Amino acid sequence: MRKKTVIIGGVAGGATTAARLRRKDESMEIVLLERGEYISYANCGLPYHVGDVIKNRESLLLQTPEAMKKKFNVDVRVQNEAVKINPEDHIVTIKDLKAGRVYEENYDYLVIATGSSPVVPPIPGIDGPDIYTLWTVPDTDRIKKVIETKKPKTAAVIGGGFIGLEMAENLHRAGLEVSIVEMQDQVMAPLDFEMAQLLHENIEMNGVSLILGDGVASFEHKDGKTLITLNSGKELQTDMVLLSIGVRPNSELAGEAGLKLNGRGGILVDEMLRTSEENIYAVGDVIEVENYVLKEPAMIPLAGPANKQGRICADNIAGGQKKYKGTLGTSVAQVFDLTAGAAGVNEKTLIRKGKVRGKDYETVLINQKSHAGYYPGAVPVTLKLLFDLDGNILGAQAVGQEGVDKRIDVLAGAMRSGNTIYDLEELELAYAPPYSSAKDPVNMLGFTAENVLEKMVSFMSCRELDDRIETEGWEKDLTILDVTEEMERMVFHIPGSVHIPLGQLRQRMSELPKDRMIVTYCAIGVRSYNAARILMQNGFSDVKVLEGGTSFYQSMHY
Amino acid sequence: MRKKTVIIGGVAGGATTAARLRRKDESMEIVLLERGEYISYANCGLPYHVGDVIKNRESLLLQTPEAMKKKFNVDVRVQNEAVKINPEDHIVTIKDLKAGRVYEENYDYLVIATGSSPVVPPIPGIDGPDIYTLWTVPDTDRIKKVIETKKPKTAAVIGGGFIGLEMAENLHRAGLEVSIVEMQDQVMAPLDFEMAQLLHENIEMNGVSLILGDGVASFEHKDGKTLITLNSGKELQTDMVLLSIGVRPNSELAGEAGLKLNGRGGILVDEMLRTSEENIYAVGDVIEVENYVLKEPAMIPLAGPANKQGRICADNIAGGQKKYKGTLGTSVAQVFDLTAGAAGVNEKTLIRKGKVRGKDYETVLINQKSHAGYYPGAVPVTLKLLFDLDGNILGAQAVGQEGVDKRIDVLAGAMRSGNTIYDLEELELAYAPPYSSAKDPVNMLGFTAENVLEKMVSFMSCRELDDRIETEGWEKDLTILDVTEEMERMVFHIPGSVHIPLGQLRQRMSELPKDRMIVTYCAIGVRSYNAARILMQNGFSDVKVLEGGTSFYQSMHY
Ligand SMILES: Cc1cc2nc3c(=O)[nH]c(=O)nc-3n(C[C@H](O)[C@H](O)[C@H](O)COP(=O)(O)OP(=O)(O)OC[C@H]3O[C@@H](n4cnc5c(N)ncnc54)[C@H](O)[C@@H]3O)c2cc1C
Ligand SMILES: Cc1cc2nc3c(=O)[nH]c(=O)nc-3n(C[C@H](O)[C@H](O)[C@H](O)COP(=O)(O)OP(=O)(O)OC[C@H]3O[C@@H](n4cnc5c(N)ncnc54)[C@H](O)[C@@H]3O)c2cc1C
Ligand SMILES: CC(C)(COP(=O)(O)OP(=O)(O)OC[C@H]1O[C@@H](n2cnc3c(N)ncnc32)[C@H](O)[C@@H]1OP(=O)(O)O)[C@@H](O)C(=O)NCCC(=O)NCCS
Ligand SMILES: CC(C)(COP(=O)(O)OP(=O)(O)OC[C@H]1O[C@@H](n2cnc3c(N)ncnc32)[C@H](O)[C@@H]1OP(=O)(O)O)[C@@H](O)C(=O)NCCC(=O)NCCS
Repeated sequence: MRKKTVIIGGVAGGATTAARLRRKDESMEIVLLERGEYISYANCGLPYHVGDVIKNRESLLLQTPEAMKKKFNVDVRVQNEAVKINPEDHIVTIKDLKAGRVYEENYDYLVIATGSSPVVPPIPGIDGPDIYTLWTVPDTDRIKKVIETKKPKTAAVIGGGFIGLEMAENLHRAGLEVSIVEMQDQVMAPLDFEMAQLLHENIEMNGVSLILGDGVASFEHKDGKTLITLNSGKELQTDMVLLSIGVRPNSELAGEAGLKLNGRGGILVDEMLRTSEENIYAVGDVIEVENYVLKEPAMIPLAGPANKQGRICADNIAGGQKKYKGTLGTSVAQVFDLTAGAAGVNEKTLIRKGKVRGKDYETVLINQKSHAGYYPGAVPVTLKLLFDLDGNILGAQAVGQEGVDKRIDVLAGAMRSGNTIYDLEELELAYAPPYSSAKDPVNMLGFTAENVLEKMVSFMSCRELDDRIETEGWEKDLTILDVTEEMERMVFHIPGSVHIPLGQLRQRMSELPKDRMIVTYCAIGVRSYNAARILMQNGFSDVKVLEGGTSFYQSMHY
Repeated sequence: MRKKTVIIGGVAGGATTAARLRRKDESMEIVLLERGEYISYANCGLPYHVGDVIKNRESLLLQTPEAMKKKFNVDVRVQNEAVKINPEDHIVTIKDLKAGRVYEENYDYLVIATGSSPVVPPIPGIDGPDIYTLWTVPDTDRIKKVIETKKPKTAAVIGGGFIGLEMAENLHRAGLEVSIVEMQDQVMAPLDFEMAQLLHENIEMNGVSLILGDGVASFEHKDGKTLITLNSGKELQTDMVLLSIGVRPNSELAGEAGLKLNGRGGILVDEMLRTSEENIYAVGDVIEVENYVLKEPAMIPLAGPANKQGRICADNIAGGQKKYKGTLGTSVAQVFDLTAGAAGVNEKTLIRKGKVRGKDYETVLINQKSHAGYYPGAVPVTLKLLFDLDGNILGAQAVGQEGVDKRIDVLAGAMRSGNTIYDLEELELAYAPPYSSAKDPVNMLGFTAENVLEKMVSFMSCRELDDRIETEGWEKDLTILDVTEEMERMVFHIPGSVHIPLGQLRQRMSELPKDRMIVTYCAIGVRSYNAARILMQNGFSDVKVLEGGTSFYQSMHY
């Protein structure tokens, strides 16, 4: 008996399921339903088509329905929307959007790969004429056409997530004057504030205006422009608005059919990606996954997981017993001149869960060069690592011009393997001057993390230093010690700091008071760490190192 | 009682040991002996100074003796050579090379970090005037001066290891016409032949002549030039010779003192990096390590391991109990337009050890894009993975213009963590179009490796195909099936192949004979794999896929 699999949704998760299933089972009948016009396209490339980085629109369409039919013998039906699932009778009701006809299709296996859609909140005026979201190929065509024909001069991007930032960058590239409005005090939620601050600096350096900690109260169409009123009362006039404030799973269909959903609408699946109904699987943005680090339910709408889930789902339909083991949320994005990447949990999340630094977890934040400093083109990379007091890695973040994706990938692999910070020290990474240093930044994260756990070093964050020196008379409790060379100090120094270059510290430490906290600093943190070691072993009992050094400190105060 | 550590050798392993030891123990007396003029320099950058990529000579000198004294309170003695170790009495005899004086120094702990030296074999004429090795700063100064003053037009590099290739590239950059002579049939020993072949193609494309499988019989200085006679009888005239045919450990001192050495002169150490003598440690190129994959003794002279060992050694001297767990040999090198990287063992080594493919191990070789194909700048990366039949990863190799170091690092991490190929499938790597694909090349290695182990696919290497079609009448046993599109076939096809584009295969497979082996091919291997799946499930029992597709096949026959 020839079995039949019906797949709802024809892009990342759905198309991959179809392709793998075909390779596993040449005789299976496979029907792929897609309500849009296109299947198997590169959602992730769409922002770059707007900015003309990806010039060729066709290159975004990885498979056409015809090719998918010919190569994979999949019955692809675009502009066919699944409108009802009947799990009892194993029947899907489908609406042919072009013909207007409604019909039924029975299935042995059903795969729900309906993805997610951008959130459009009920803000007054949100249905105004110049307000767009970017999610599909037609969305992209529309925005490109507006830019070409209406020639807008200004754009406001609402939402500073990765898609918002990619759009800001590409609208900027397309010649528009761009503002970003973000409700939180930072862009790129996977990063902690101080890491995001590096992006803020660079975004503004690129002439894009950044409004943080403010949300949209209303939109109003007026004189051919959109007037945006923010919660703070601030107003903004713009030619076009790009809304990018989050996504919600396309699970109405599943919910109506009685499949179990979580509170955010995510379809619940077991490890084999089976929903609560027999023979119905679900993959991609629409499902709830397990956060690999916290072992808690999560919604993580990313293409890598969707593709992997599709392959696992196909194998299970073909009789396999494959498990999907959860999602780390490894992500990366280009943000103007920088790359930002992250994996696992961030500090905000730990704090929200009531965890306390020093008791439940620790962090290190370091600055290293992307490759050997003496080889041309080396640029700084800032890395942050979160780990518990046994050394288990909880999360990692990196920002820099180069080499960020590599370090995040290595760290994501380490987290996936349950590595500790001690394992990071031992990682034997490829070294030649154009690529890395003999101690790779990832090794350095391990070293510094060990030093923290072994109490060889204690860091003070820029924020904490700022808080302290805001108090009148702080000098009575704290000495800020600059251990850089004379020349460096002339270029920049933290006001109120004392200056003793590292090379003179052993001779001159009697100049320093032993009864108060000392915070050492240098350019990146290495010399100040060496200085701290000298002091700690010479009777100074409360010594801290300024995290990331002045290079980071200056970015925090850009 | 103040303890004293004497360290012999002041570069990668030695200087790192000193720095870390100081941070661990401010009161320890630390003496650093270096027979050369410089400590703590960037050996790895030296070739690039010859090619003027690294213009500033000073940038290669990471620490001066003075700075090391001031910052780390280390008693650095350059041009002081350790000439004898007396383990019983804990005494080192030292020759001050400048003053000519010989003196003694006692120690509580001794660290041998004497590194290695280039092998200079007793070939007739090897002491000729224009024959150089590059290992130290003075070597570099000498070669740079020769290039500037004598203006040689041609150079022959003897040895195609990574230093030889870096020198070939940099001499080429400096305007010389370069030949490389290598005894083996390939350059870059960590790679297998077919991977090295990609480098051969690129080296020759860059106008460097490559003589493989031939060694030097003699050198002769004649008319201001060096005449090189090769074992084959072939002759080569050149203005300068750069010898780079391997290294040997600087362990005479250790050997004479009775420390246990292996057959190649490597100092034997335990997991804590202690030699056979009490309180004598050794690190770096001079020691024998354990091959992390084979769990066998090995000599692996690389900077990453030397640095890590130095840190572990320091911690153990300071009372720690740290273990060094072996070396994977992760390496990377820039070779003209390409990057080549490797970790773990290669197939040559497995074969040498009597292992049989299909019985003891399997391999996959794939071609993937460095990042999403639709985003500008994506270039092919060729990856090879070796694994045993349980899926344990034995080794990995990669060659390409970009993204090679990242994939090798991820794979090295996976190997270090004892991952299997199934783990590679699950690795959640960072994806955005400028950095990778939703299925990263490393995931793809996992997928294809699983397919091999599950017998969903069987690959034929280019070499095997070549061997088969050399036999007269091969067509009786074998059909070569081209599944590319018409346009692609017009550009290139394998002679004697049959053509059915993938999209027509289901309709036209009756044209193919079922009684003989079929090898499918396309550009990179993906469509031909899909074709093979169709055939295998339709009664064709012996179907293979041409490994790496025609893009790889063409490089094999460049
Ligand atoms: C602009 C943009 C940039 C992105 N960049 C990245 C990135 O850089 N990295 C990354 O990892 N991820 C990125 N993503 C996210 C990534 O594209 C998604 O996580 C991934 O596509 C999810 O796969 P999916 O199969 O679950 O859903 P989708 O790929 O969205 O496919 C779902 C499909 O189902 C169809 N559908 C829905 N309901 C029905 C129905 N009832 N009947 C028929 N068809 C239906 C939809 O029309 C849609 O085509 C980006 C997304 C966008 C929009
Ligand atoms: C040109 C070149 C390029 C390289 N490129 C790379 C690369 O890209 N990646 C990589 O991983 N590795 C590379 N290496 C290898 C790397 O530099 C070595 O593996 C590393 O330096 C070994 O560290 P070590 O401390 O064991 O020895 P070294 O760094 O060589 O230091 C040993 C020191 O000991 C001194 N010494 C020896 N005997 C005595 C004695 N009796 N008394 C006093 N002093 C003594 C020597 O003069 C020497 O300075 C390269 C090496 C060279 C030469
Ligand atoms: C286009 C699409 C249908 C292709 O699906 P696919 O055939 O599974 O994927 P690929 O073309 O990448 O090929 C991967 C397959 O080839 C195999 N393969 C890869 N390289 C190979 C090589 N050199 N030789 C042999 N096999 C190879 C892999 O093992 C895998 O097969 P498997 O899953 O059976 O193990 C699907 O990926 C898709 O729709 N993608 C676009 C949508 C999307 O992902 N959007 C979000 C990101 S922008
Ligand atoms: C120069 C040299 C003496 C420096 O040794 P070092 O001080 O151990 O190394 P680094 O300057 O890289 O600093 C690393 C230390 O700073 C710490 N560190 C790094 N970044 C930090 C930051 N942002 N904040 C605080 N600490 C940091 C690390 O944890 C490490 O300390 P640890 O070993 O006590 O854990 C030694 O590396 C050397 O001689 N190198 C050149 C020779 C060589 O390696 N050649 C071969 C390759 S070309």
